[in-house]
Amino acid sequence: MEFKISRDFITQIEQYVSENRENELQALLADIHYADIAEIMGELDDADSIYIFHILDSEKTAEILLELDEEVREKILKGLSPKEIAEELDELSTDDAADIIAELPEGRQGEVISELLDVEHAKDIVDLLRYDEDTAGGLMGKELVKVNENWTVLTCVKEMRIQAENVQRVHSIYVVDDENRLKGRLSLKDLLTTSTKTPISEVYIPKVDSVKVTTPDVEVARIMQKYDLEAIPVIDELGRLVGRITIDDIVDVIKDEADKDYQLAAGISQDVEADDSIIDLTKARLPWLVLALLGGFISVKLLNSFSGAMQYHKELFFFTPLIAAMAGNVGVQSSAIIVQGLANNSISGSLFNRLIKEVLLSLLNGSLLALILIAGSHLLLGVSYEVGLTVSISLISVIIIASLIGTFIPILLNKMGIDPALATGPFITTSNDICGILIYFSIAKLILGF
Amino acid sequence: MEFKISRDFITQIEQYVSENRENELQALLADIHYADIAEIMGELDDADSIYIFHILDSEKTAEILLELDEEVREKILKGLSPKEIAEELDELSTDDAADIIAELPEGRQGEVISELLDVEHAKDIVDLLRYDEDTAGGLMGKELVKVNENWTVLTCVKEMRIQAENVQRVHSIYVVDDENRLKGRLSLKDLLTTSTKTPISEVYIPKVDSVKVTTPDVEVARIMQKYDLEAIPVIDELGRLVGRITIDDIVDVIKDEADKDYQLAAGISQDVEADDSIIDLTKARLPWLVLALLGGFISVKLLNSFSGAMQYHKELFFFTPLIAAMAGNVGVQSSAIIVQGLANNSISGSLFNRLIKEVLLSLLNGSLLALILIAGSHLLLGVSYEVGLTVSISLISVIIIASLIGTFIPILLNKMGIDPALATGPFITTSNDICGILIYFSIAKLILGF
Repeated sequence: MEFKISRDFITQIEQYVSENRENELQALLADIHYADIAEIMGELDDADSIYIFHILDSEKTAEILLELDEEVREKILKGLSPKEIAEELDELSTDDAADIIAELPEGRQGEVISELLDVEHAKDIVDLLRYDEDTAGGLMGKELVKVNENWTVLTCVKEMRIQAENVQRVHSIYVVDDENRLKGRLSLKDLLTTSTKTPISEVYIPKVDSVKVTTPDVEVARIMQKYDLEAIPVIDELGRLVGRITIDDIVDVIKDEADKDYQLAAGISQDVEADDSIIDLTKARLPWLVLALLGGFISVKLLNSFSGAMQYHKELFFFTPLIAAMAGNVGVQSSAIIVQGLANNSISGSLFNRLIKEVLLSLLNGSLLALILIAGSHLLLGVSYEVGLTVSISLISVIIIASLIGTFIPILLNKMGIDPALATGPFITTSNDICGILIYFSIAKLILGF
Repeated sequence: MEFKISRDFITQIEQYVSENRENELQALLADIHYADIAEIMGELDDADSIYIFHILDSEKTAEILLELDEEVREKILKGLSPKEIAEELDELSTDDAADIIAELPEGRQGEVISELLDVEHAKDIVDLLRYDEDTAGGLMGKELVKVNENWTVLTCVKEMRIQAENVQRVHSIYVVDDENRLKGRLSLKDLLTTSTKTPISEVYIPKVDSVKVTTPDVEVARIMQKYDLEAIPVIDELGRLVGRITIDDIVDVIKDEADKDYQLAAGISQDVEADDSIIDLTKARLPWLVLALLGGFISVKLLNSFSGAMQYHKELFFFTPLIAAMAGNVGVQSSAIIVQGLANNSISGSLFNRLIKEVLLSLLNGSLLALILIAGSHLLLGVSYEVGLTVSISLISVIIIASLIGTFIPILLNKMGIDPALATGPFITTSNDICGILIYFSIAKLILGF
């Protein structure tokens, strides 16, 4: 059951802290999950949350450290000595410990590592720090259960009991040769249901999915999702087993990737939250707004160049926001579908077929919308049929062009190795605004001849 | 390692199918993962993929069935007898089997269930069909390992060997009382490291997170993510253990939820993919475009009512797309941040503080943009300072209002129990277009007095 953090509870804690009532605080927080304590600390001011952190025991604080927002964690770590940080890290698994060390300033990293008590643990952590954070190497942990293909099951079970002491959750038992090269796996089910006398070489499954240390994290996520894996072993260039990635790490990758695409589509260029500072929010939002403003200048210029039309057909200018909005909306729809398809690897077939399909789709949607527009603009707005027809033909053309831009710019970016999600949101609405207005007035000029 | 499906490979399969070369096909597909075969079948035409399905053995076809796109699966199932479908389902876990039965037409469901060979399995599946698909009950499977608190560890291990036969992956060992009420859990680590003579009541962990059958799926996802759980037991109203949910089911929930929010933000109202039919794509896209068009009518009306300004300040009309675009972009940014915050449960603090923050943020962003606008419109576009000032003041006002609308409409919808993601995308851009134009011309009228 989830614990709900109430305002009253926070106030209670703040009061205890201000009165230095350590025992009451410890009692109050004793049964609360570390993830909830981390959330509570996020609600407190810095001094209070540092106070809380110091009165809890290190098994719990290590897990809390992991769950904290990055800024809160940074503040807490600043207040700890290298030795104290090392004590926290000794409680954590290698991948989590490496992630925290990677956040420290360069100079402190060495100091903390030299204070780690468990030498094997320290070696593993140092090894993990070598890898890029967005690769399989950066995601993997060193904790795994592995057995030698030359052992008997009896030796295995004994060895595994020892290894399992250091492993939080046993996902798979990997089988390696004398050179530590990954050969296959033993399933937990096999472990529970096979007689202990059988030799390993007879029972192991010689087929096992694996990824290389250099495989990008989103690719690992895709493979694990596709093949429904709860853990995947990671091998180095020589095929040696160097770590494993578990599904809970992948959940974060999937969530982050989806959030990132969503934020790009909304014109936010960094991972920000509603509770971040005004400066951080501005940094994430302003660049896209400046881009949109510059695009706006171009549309002003364009309209200015068509100002001759104002004398005879001023209604045309009333329709520009409508045309621009339709172009923007269609472009965003098309680009979102393509970006999602590219992310899920589900875009197949030839580019030419896709072109034909987009044109047909736009013709269908555009024609239906044009009918509403002709009727509406005449009945509601009293516009002449001539102008109504002009606007309608423009609308259909604009929808076709906007959907083509929305479809093919992400595909093009993807081919060039650029994140296609960049081409959603403000980028696509701005370019489609401009194209839309240009097409609209060009067609109007052709038909109405001003 | 992932298998890459090439065009050549598909052509090869199509040729073998057309020549009825069953043995070659079986050999070709023997070593290919079911997820890959499902993907291949998605590329083939219906007759070919049904042919492929029939020549593979049922252990593989059952898994393939699960991985197929819903439409392809529907076609395959149509071609199978109730007995054949039941044979596939006997190979699957209860939750997966129930999901497939739920997709069948009502009449066929009973026929298929009555053909299931394993009576226990059939009972479990029927039980699962009672639950809503977007609740914990709809997500859970019946396969789990549970032990009675009154047993000894020795009895446990024996019982578990039997139970584990039916369970694909052992996540946790749950402890229940004589009434099947959930009391706690035994970890796999305990299993490997505890002596077999210990009584269960002494070793089990009496604290265990659980969800009710009625808990919504997104809530289950949030809890499992927050508390880093790989599996969570599901209890009924009386606290009895009725099933378990594993993290791989949650991965799909998280992905679907993120995709849905993304699609709503882009103005797509159903889960569609780039490869869906033109009709399906139109159904998902057209409603939002009609909404935007109707909003466009309002903006035309508004501009028409301000047409008096054209005589003296026609430049004002050149700036309408710019103002509308800025309003739309700011609104989408604000709403996206709030919608994501609401989804992650990370929106805290009072509404009044949020209001102040949004206004300050908009003032900062708006003022910076206004400076660029004044300079740019004078230098690049040769607009008079008077008009430049008017547009700039309007821009700041429009940005403030747009960000308030973008922030508070999602919060309001959320309070009313409506999905706040509905208020992103076309909805917010359209309403902000209209508000933006209204504010712009009202301010212009005030300053320039036309």
